[in-house]
Amino acid sequence: MDPIVEAYHLWMDNGWEDCAAGVAAVTSIIRVRQVLTARADQILAPIELTFSRYELLVHLYFNDGQLPLAKLGRRLQIHQTSVTTLVDKVEAQGLIRRIPHPTDRRSTIAQLTPEGRILTQQAIGRLNAELFRDLGLTGEEVQTLIALLTKMRRSWADLDKDSAADLFSPA
Amino acid sequence: MDPIVEAYHLWMDNGWEDCAAGVAAVTSIIRVRQVLTARADQILAPIELTFSRYELLVHLYFNDGQLPLAKLGRRLQIHQTSVTTLVDKVEAQGLIRRIPHPTDRRSTIAQLTPEGRILTQQAIGRLNAELFRDLGLTGEEVQTLIALLTKMRRSWADLDKDSAADLFSPA
Repeated sequence: MDPIVEAYHLWMDNGWEDCAAGVAAVTSIIRVRQVLTARADQILAPIELTFSRYELLVHLYFNDGQLPLAKLGRRLQIHQTSVTTLVDKVEAQGLIRRIPHPTDRRSTIAQLTPEGRILTQQAIGRLNAELFRDLGLTGEEVQTLIALLTKMRRSWADLDKDSAADLFSPA
Repeated sequence: MDPIVEAYHLWMDNGWEDCAAGVAAVTSIIRVRQVLTARADQILAPIELTFSRYELLVHLYFNDGQLPLAKLGRRLQIHQTSVTTLVDKVEAQGLIRRIPHPTDRRSTIAQLTPEGRILTQQAIGRLNAELFRDLGLTGEEVQTLIALLTKMRRSWADLDKDSAADLFSPA
């Protein structure tokens, strides 16, 4: 049975009717995130990247090619030990290098190499063509999805400003 | 700047207009998944659980209290080494125990203890009251969200049958 339908029915059958749609929605989000990652991993495999490595590279790419490791962890919202593991891997691939921070000697900077820059561009091109351009939804549905997810984030105080809401809320 | 808005503008400014909404939607899903997990971790912290541990326990709970480790990994869609780490932790807490498989000697079964059963019920109660019951959306919006996520899954062939679509598609 489909995991979302299963969760829904389990909640209904156990007398938690008022939470059944909520659990189905949460299960759907978790599932879609998993499938998204698997799909992106597949798209990036021919250029020897994973979605996690891409996320790291793309953050460097759009920050003038470099960021301190601590900042990178906060941006990616992953634990510092995971940043280290990830940075080790892409450094071994020659896509980034670690350089000392010019003013803070306890801090290390991850810097995109020229090879890393080219591969990041290729990765963006692949993901644009094979994932981002067509999520299996109409343009209007994509807008609705973003608006709903933004509304959830706002209820958890995950929005500093209303900017995402302003941009994507249906008029 | 909000990460979703930032991704959207980066894509617009780089000439990838036809992929900008898609990248914003994918970033939103990733972000909401992260916030969901953080929120659930917070709700479960007083009873010394994390959302990952809860997910493992709840699968056992709704499968007559036991599952082979390999099956558990497939259900949770996590790597076998992660299953082992997770099982070690909840076993150390006395919530499950490992027992040998009755017929397959290479397989191990994770079995919920009576303490584990009680804690799982408490965890469900907490998550129902503090998360699943109110996702910050109206009932109709929750249905729309599930329908959109289901449509995305269908386009990636992540649905065996149309059951989830039947259940949640707006009429």
